[in-house]
Amino acid sequence: MKERSNLLGWRPDIKVVDATLRDGGLVNDFYFTDEFVKKLYLTNIKAGVDYMEFGYKANKELFDVNKFGKWKFCDDEDIRAIVGDNDTDLKIAVMADVGRCNYKEDIRPKSESPVDLVRIATYIHTIPQAIDMIEDAAAKGYETTVNIMAISQAQEGDIAVALDMLGKTPVNAFYIVDSYGSIYPEEMTRVADMYMEVANKYGKKVGIHAHNNQQLAFANTIECCGCGVDYLDATYSGMGRGAGNCYIESLIGFLHNPKYNLYPVIQFIENYINPMKEEGITWGYDMQYLFTGLLNRHPKSAIDYTKAGRKDLTELYNEIILMD
Amino acid sequence: MKERSNLLGWRPDIKVVDATLRDGGLVNDFYFTDEFVKKLYLTNIKAGVDYMEFGYKANKELFDVNKFGKWKFCDDEDIRAIVGDNDTDLKIAVMADVGRCNYKEDIRPKSESPVDLVRIATYIHTIPQAIDMIEDAAAKGYETTVNIMAISQAQEGDIAVALDMLGKTPVNAFYIVDSYGSIYPEEMTRVADMYMEVANKYGKKVGIHAHNNQQLAFANTIECCGCGVDYLDATYSGMGRGAGNCYIESLIGFLHNPKYNLYPVIQFIENYINPMKEEGITWGYDMQYLFTGLLNRHPKSAIDYTKAGRKDLTELYNEIILMD
Repeated sequence: MKERSNLLGWRPDIKVVDATLRDGGLVNDFYFTDEFVKKLYLTNIKAGVDYMEFGYKANKELFDVNKFGKWKFCDDEDIRAIVGDNDTDLKIAVMADVGRCNYKEDIRPKSESPVDLVRIATYIHTIPQAIDMIEDAAAKGYETTVNIMAISQAQEGDIAVALDMLGKTPVNAFYIVDSYGSIYPEEMTRVADMYMEVANKYGKKVGIHAHNNQQLAFANTIECCGCGVDYLDATYSGMGRGAGNCYIESLIGFLHNPKYNLYPVIQFIENYINPMKEEGITWGYDMQYLFTGLLNRHPKSAIDYTKAGRKDLTELYNEIILMD
Repeated sequence: MKERSNLLGWRPDIKVVDATLRDGGLVNDFYFTDEFVKKLYLTNIKAGVDYMEFGYKANKELFDVNKFGKWKFCDDEDIRAIVGDNDTDLKIAVMADVGRCNYKEDIRPKSESPVDLVRIATYIHTIPQAIDMIEDAAAKGYETTVNIMAISQAQEGDIAVALDMLGKTPVNAFYIVDSYGSIYPEEMTRVADMYMEVANKYGKKVGIHAHNNQQLAFANTIECCGCGVDYLDATYSGMGRGAGNCYIESLIGFLHNPKYNLYPVIQFIENYINPMKEEGITWGYDMQYLFTGLLNRHPKSAIDYTKAGRKDLTELYNEIILMD
């Protein structure tokens, strides 16, 4: 059982990471208005958020710049147009996917960039490439974290080996990523303990990025928090692909460090998130996402079902289970 | 940490209690069609649900029968019109509120009724009346459970005394009730351990009735399940007052007893629950319910906000915090 005192107090090492533009960008192809992004930045500062992820550093040779908003690419100049010199306590993050980022060229030295943290996303079979990206970004002066995605479909033994390989790199934190929203809190405890053990061995931190397919994103995030996980990803009203993420309003409400402030978060949701939903931008828990979470599958079939406006849930369930 | 084997296996003592008509009835004033109720009953049988709660045994001298559907009152004849002699494994439950039920007259002997279980709902300050109702129902031949509501605003010492008083009655189970949806899973573990200790002393079972104000209803329910709590309340798509309850589709998906079957649950949701939502019947998580959950308040202000179609979240938050 977790210590009661830990729930009333707070741990200074905890970092709240706002991933709204990055994971939320997967919902609207990164077409956020400049006003939205600027207000989100100012809100995060007021709310005491520790990191704001602006989007991906996607390779423009692989992705058509005319088909996505600018936060798919996160050019330094575009970030700087929002944050200036960012003379604040809020740090700036971007995500670089293995195989989808021309990192040697597109990630410039930290001294020339407003970015503080490069978050490297990898699958279990591309760890060596992730390590090359970590070493590149760290050598350029950035903080780095690494997301091993879709771990619910990976072997525990492989994850242990991967963490050990990553422990020997300059990476600052290993992220637990429940890509399919399929992990239950009591399983998450076991995963967190496994990550924490390797992290402690190598002097690293651990993070959690949860999905809400089973309405467990917040529960899993605070479960991890109770296990010593420090980097906590969340988004405004859970905005993110499919069932979305941990709600930042729930997380800020839960944490007790007096620097966190819920009020600006509420204001931003009233003025920017809820109007966007009313315009028809759709994300969040629904039964189709429960199916893919429960069955530990990629959410693609559920996302397609949602986009097509289908209502035949039973038929979707049949389609998913008959894929095997 | 919970035993890994418990998550893969199953415990025969677990009972799934469908509270859709009762807690969901608070959303539509109990105006369910006979077809809906009949199909729900048949679905619960196919799904392996253990108990189906039909509604309240409300006192017709206190509540106008013209202002509520019949499941506010649950006359034995109305239940029998749906279930006949109920020659199935599904047991029938009703709820009786302290102070709102003319139990001496309206609850007839079990031999004359299709009801199996009388669920007595009480606040911490009306335990003696609850005990009288338990003894009355038990003497008439019913199983009984007792819900101590709103425990997040009660003193732990008082709850301990109440459980000890209830332990000496014929009641079958004590229910943990998170009326305001304000309890976090790691707190729920401590609450469950406290209830389990008294229950084990007196040979009773423990149940959990959760609310989804912080999107923790399912997480809290399975947390309790992992602590040895056996009676698990849930409703179809979480239908229930305000933020609603634990989703039965999530719970049935989680449990591993082969008698539980998700497929009829999906069919019922597609054919009866989702169409009801599209007609404008509203429940479930929204940010106004996060406020009351986070602040440990009755959901009334959030329900009124929802009914009025208000969108001024920040103002609502001010109203709630300035109530003190």
